[in-house]
Amino acid sequence: MNGSAFRGRTAIVGVGQSAFYKHGGSPDSEFRLTLDAVLAACTDAGLDPRKIDGFTSFNFDRNDPSRMAAALGLPELRYANMFWGGGGGGAAAVANAAAAILAGFATCVVVYRGLAQGQHGRYGDGLSIGAYGRDAAYVAPYGLMTPAQWYAMRVTRFMHDHNIQPDALRAISRASYHHAQLNPHALMYGRPLTDDKYDQSRWIVEPFRLYDCCMENDCAGAVIVVAAEEAPHYRQAPAYILGAAQGSEYRNQARIHNAPNYGSASFTTVAPRLFAQAGVKPSEVDVAQSYENFTGGVLMSLIEHGFCSPEEANEFFIIENLTAPSGQLPLNTSGGNLAEAYIHGMGQIMEAVRQVQGRSTAQVPDVEISFVSSGPMVSPCSNMLLGGATTL
Amino acid sequence: MNGSAFRGRTAIVGVGQSAFYKHGGSPDSEFRLTLDAVLAACTDAGLDPRKIDGFTSFNFDRNDPSRMAAALGLPELRYANMFWGGGGGGAAAVANAAAAILAGFATCVVVYRGLAQGQHGRYGDGLSIGAYGRDAAYVAPYGLMTPAQWYAMRVTRFMHDHNIQPDALRAISRASYHHAQLNPHALMYGRPLTDDKYDQSRWIVEPFRLYDCCMENDCAGAVIVVAAEEAPHYRQAPAYILGAAQGSEYRNQARIHNAPNYGSASFTTVAPRLFAQAGVKPSEVDVAQSYENFTGGVLMSLIEHGFCSPEEANEFFIIENLTAPSGQLPLNTSGGNLAEAYIHGMGQIMEAVRQVQGRSTAQVPDVEISFVSSGPMVSPCSNMLLGGATTL
Repeated sequence: MNGSAFRGRTAIVGVGQSAFYKHGGSPDSEFRLTLDAVLAACTDAGLDPRKIDGFTSFNFDRNDPSRMAAALGLPELRYANMFWGGGGGGAAAVANAAAAILAGFATCVVVYRGLAQGQHGRYGDGLSIGAYGRDAAYVAPYGLMTPAQWYAMRVTRFMHDHNIQPDALRAISRASYHHAQLNPHALMYGRPLTDDKYDQSRWIVEPFRLYDCCMENDCAGAVIVVAAEEAPHYRQAPAYILGAAQGSEYRNQARIHNAPNYGSASFTTVAPRLFAQAGVKPSEVDVAQSYENFTGGVLMSLIEHGFCSPEEANEFFIIENLTAPSGQLPLNTSGGNLAEAYIHGMGQIMEAVRQVQGRSTAQVPDVEISFVSSGPMVSPCSNMLLGGATTL
Repeated sequence: MNGSAFRGRTAIVGVGQSAFYKHGGSPDSEFRLTLDAVLAACTDAGLDPRKIDGFTSFNFDRNDPSRMAAALGLPELRYANMFWGGGGGGAAAVANAAAAILAGFATCVVVYRGLAQGQHGRYGDGLSIGAYGRDAAYVAPYGLMTPAQWYAMRVTRFMHDHNIQPDALRAISRASYHHAQLNPHALMYGRPLTDDKYDQSRWIVEPFRLYDCCMENDCAGAVIVVAAEEAPHYRQAPAYILGAAQGSEYRNQARIHNAPNYGSASFTTVAPRLFAQAGVKPSEVDVAQSYENFTGGVLMSLIEHGFCSPEEANEFFIIENLTAPSGQLPLNTSGGNLAEAYIHGMGQIMEAVRQVQGRSTAQVPDVEISFVSSGPMVSPCSNMLLGGATTL
């Protein structure tokens, strides 16, 4: 089977989410939040949960699939799969669900991610560095203890190499906050961000201010993947999976920046593979959800995906271009990791689906092609293109 | 794509292993052992390692795929995948590699498992129970702290229900030791097991004596998966993947035994799916590798796969039936987890391949169909059927 035999053969037919809580704010367990998200996705699709026969996730999600199967009363679990890597695996977890369906292993696979950081370790806590694995040993002795510190290095290099100004990062942050004001579920709903408020916020680590960094939350999200021929039987319009790629570049190891590609979001080979597989050009994308661990990762991701060149970045990354409904590339239209909720990228996937279905709170008109990238600056990372029925 | 479109479309073309060490005996790191196994598999297949573009594994293998890609100098990693579960994932990790190739995500995927228990926690250590996840909270308060204790419950129930005698477990153990005497790489090579020696060995937990329990070792194994049409280009005869199933039964949660199926290897639904997918009957299988965490798991696995009925077990499980070259179902012909090396089931997969290729140290004549089961009594678990070119 070649890439074109993957295009459009599977679809997402439901999305679901738990309530979103500030870090430590959930009265329910992480497993309960995850179960809520799965059940909400079933309701959204009009699916009897007992029809589910597979689960995928990423970043060593703690919510065991056989426990989930038992909780839902599944007659049988046929597939359980973990993208091997970190937050870069959101789109890849969807791709793995699609591959399982195409191989005949399962027929209805739920992708979920439950993450109650308030009940477990915080990603942003330097004392949690042991949880990042052995690669951390290469950076911790130099004082680089947290993701913000590691990724600041890459972004600083990239911005220096291409003379990109800090205003570009501010525009990315403001786009997320702008869209969050339209989304009542967003944790930053009712808390708009102005240029002044951004400029006056404290440094976390240069070039990242407070508003350049994702939140840490207690929440969960889920989407349902089925074969394309089954998709029209569900309640919502299908979001067909046109392409999905994953991987890492040459010598681009987990959290280490090796030569020659120091300043990179890690998409230099994964991006062209996606567009080739889907038969889509960047200029055909109507709306983008790009995982913001930090705004600088979005900057590099979108450039590596060809939405603009490095030389065009200062002109491209302005708030007017990045907001729905009329911007050139509306970005993170639910509020994203910065302003909606941090579900490790599942929020971006759910919003990419809603844009295809025409039911975002910041809907872009007539969306045909919806783009997602997961986890910039980690390896492996992943991306995906979704389309409506007209794109098949 | 239905099951028959999976059958025979991918193949294993190389196997490789590190040196095998007793627990704590390796002078090299777990990552080095794993790299050794991957490189050995490449040499076996006649593959330039830089052609690899994907990795899969299981049970949260510690040897990060982007680190492996960097160590091997891969131009690009296109796929990195972890079966979501424990030792039941060996065959499923191969299946996931096959699905990635069929979906067009990657072209040459290495399945590896590196496990140096001497450098990390021991599975058999009751104080490690926290590593088994939250399900352990349901059993630890009752004194069930280790896998041997958990699985003794299931096996005792099954043997009681079907009046199966302890001699059946002894025959399973003796088959592994018998074959290990023919395999110079086996850790128990030169240490044969007699009925008397077995009978006099100490109880670990009834019904398991010392020789019913797997070893804990420092070692690694790897196999290479490619598309069937590419397979003839490699050095060894291809072992075609005829079928591969995975999953768990109703309410069969990780390590918990829920009603109604208390005494089970967890294969009651996964086994019939395998044979249906491959279009093979149990009676057509020439040789079996069945993961022995404990002999009782093999007993239940083979019965749930239909190699004999529960009522036939006392007659079926005798040493003469289980040994190469002439037994009715030669079992664990490299020595398995009991007597070759414990690589969490990768040894069984490698031996299933060698039997198809005619190069086992306990070769069964004219093998056409080679069977593997991974990780009985855990959920999810998995299985696989391999065949030579004549089976296509």
